[in-house]
Amino acid sequence: MKQAKYTHRYFLTAGECDATGHMPLTLLIERLIEVATEHANELGIGYADLKECGIGWVLSRLSVEMDAYPGINDSYSVTTWIESLNKRFSSRNMLIADAAGVPIGYARTLWAPINLATRGLADLTPFVADMPVCDNACPIAPYPRMPHTGTDAAVSHYTFKYCDLDFNRHVNTVRYVSLILNQWPLEHYDANMVGRFDIGFARECHFSETVALHLEEKDGASLCELLRNGERVLAARFLWRKNDMS
Amino acid sequence: MKQAKYTHRYFLTAGECDATGHMPLTLLIERLIEVATEHANELGIGYADLKECGIGWVLSRLSVEMDAYPGINDSYSVTTWIESLNKRFSSRNMLIADAAGVPIGYARTLWAPINLATRGLADLTPFVADMPVCDNACPIAPYPRMPHTGTDAAVSHYTFKYCDLDFNRHVNTVRYVSLILNQWPLEHYDANMVGRFDIGFARECHFSETVALHLEEKDGASLCELLRNGERVLAARFLWRKNDMS
Repeated sequence: MKQAKYTHRYFLTAGECDATGHMPLTLLIERLIEVATEHANELGIGYADLKECGIGWVLSRLSVEMDAYPGINDSYSVTTWIESLNKRFSSRNMLIADAAGVPIGYARTLWAPINLATRGLADLTPFVADMPVCDNACPIAPYPRMPHTGTDAAVSHYTFKYCDLDFNRHVNTVRYVSLILNQWPLEHYDANMVGRFDIGFARECHFSETVALHLEEKDGASLCELLRNGERVLAARFLWRKNDMS
Repeated sequence: MKQAKYTHRYFLTAGECDATGHMPLTLLIERLIEVATEHANELGIGYADLKECGIGWVLSRLSVEMDAYPGINDSYSVTTWIESLNKRFSSRNMLIADAAGVPIGYARTLWAPINLATRGLADLTPFVADMPVCDNACPIAPYPRMPHTGTDAAVSHYTFKYCDLDFNRHVNTVRYVSLILNQWPLEHYDANMVGRFDIGFARECHFSETVALHLEEKDGASLCELLRNGERVLAARFLWRKNDMS
């Protein structure tokens, strides 16, 4: 029996928290990817299943909106379901709930199947039949258009290292997010939480490649673009909320 | 009933693996800290219990020796127990086992209670009574003496950022380990695995502090020392093993 919804309950240890004593965005994204992976495994469209056909999942876009973040020793849960699935994409949503089961946030993710040999788009047709889709509500806006950053953007550079890579031998989603989060000083996080975060990937980065990180504030949002040799690797956007937690 | 041994079973997802498709040392150390935390919580000497007395746990030393690392979609378990406990220190060991329960590695950790206000050593006396200690075998050598690196050491610099910090508002153990692992190129990890790793902490680092990382090869080991204003922050040692996994 293929379950349309999958829930994983977690406990947030002290050691997992950031300097404000809350769940960092990096760990939240790890959890979103983890529940997606676990549900896909359960449905027979996980890493091991697709690999037999030379296919792998790649996260293409992610949007997450949070009203609050779990704190030290809080329990929380992440529930995921497939919103839609076709031969080219899988759209998968998540609900993040507190210990009492009250929603504290939602996420939208878009996954693409890639051919592990050519790294080009693959065809999911053998896997899409009989997959349970679910119309559970996901009351957050879809992924936005991500304009290019302008000439006023602040620019810094970074070269990817061993710990930035994952099993695909490309830079891991969470490490891109760390790199971006590290552009702000600690005081910024004491005063603000990430209300909404969007990230979309255009190209893969690899060991020892150097990227330029462009960052600009525009219309109340922080916009970020990562460029390699002038070409977009990813775009990201933050909407900040004042911390009322301190 | 206070259990002398605590076991947590895990599943290694693809997304958690490094570029070689195995569990990275950083995740292993996260797991060791996690089971220590969970067992301490269960015994009534966890974060929440000690905090009521203004005390927190700080990891002082860690040694881990591995014969093999879990790979993608492998199950594994970490079992922990207290080897000894007094008012100044808790010595806690771990056994890492594969899906069949066969040991693949062991760890030794030393934890100190600190006064959360002064950051000096605290007194665990109110907590040590009735704690179950266990003489389970931990067949790896104790933490070694860590000599200072010499004038031939390679030196690089790093400044700590938001994602390097944890709830203590100091740099997190795992981020120190990432920083050190990142000193070697990807090819090194394709050819070698960490057979044994030792790390010992002397001082805490904080946001925006810059450290000098000294690295030297000596007697078949890689020795690392992190210095801030010429004073030791930590010392680490790697014993590498040729990968026969490729």
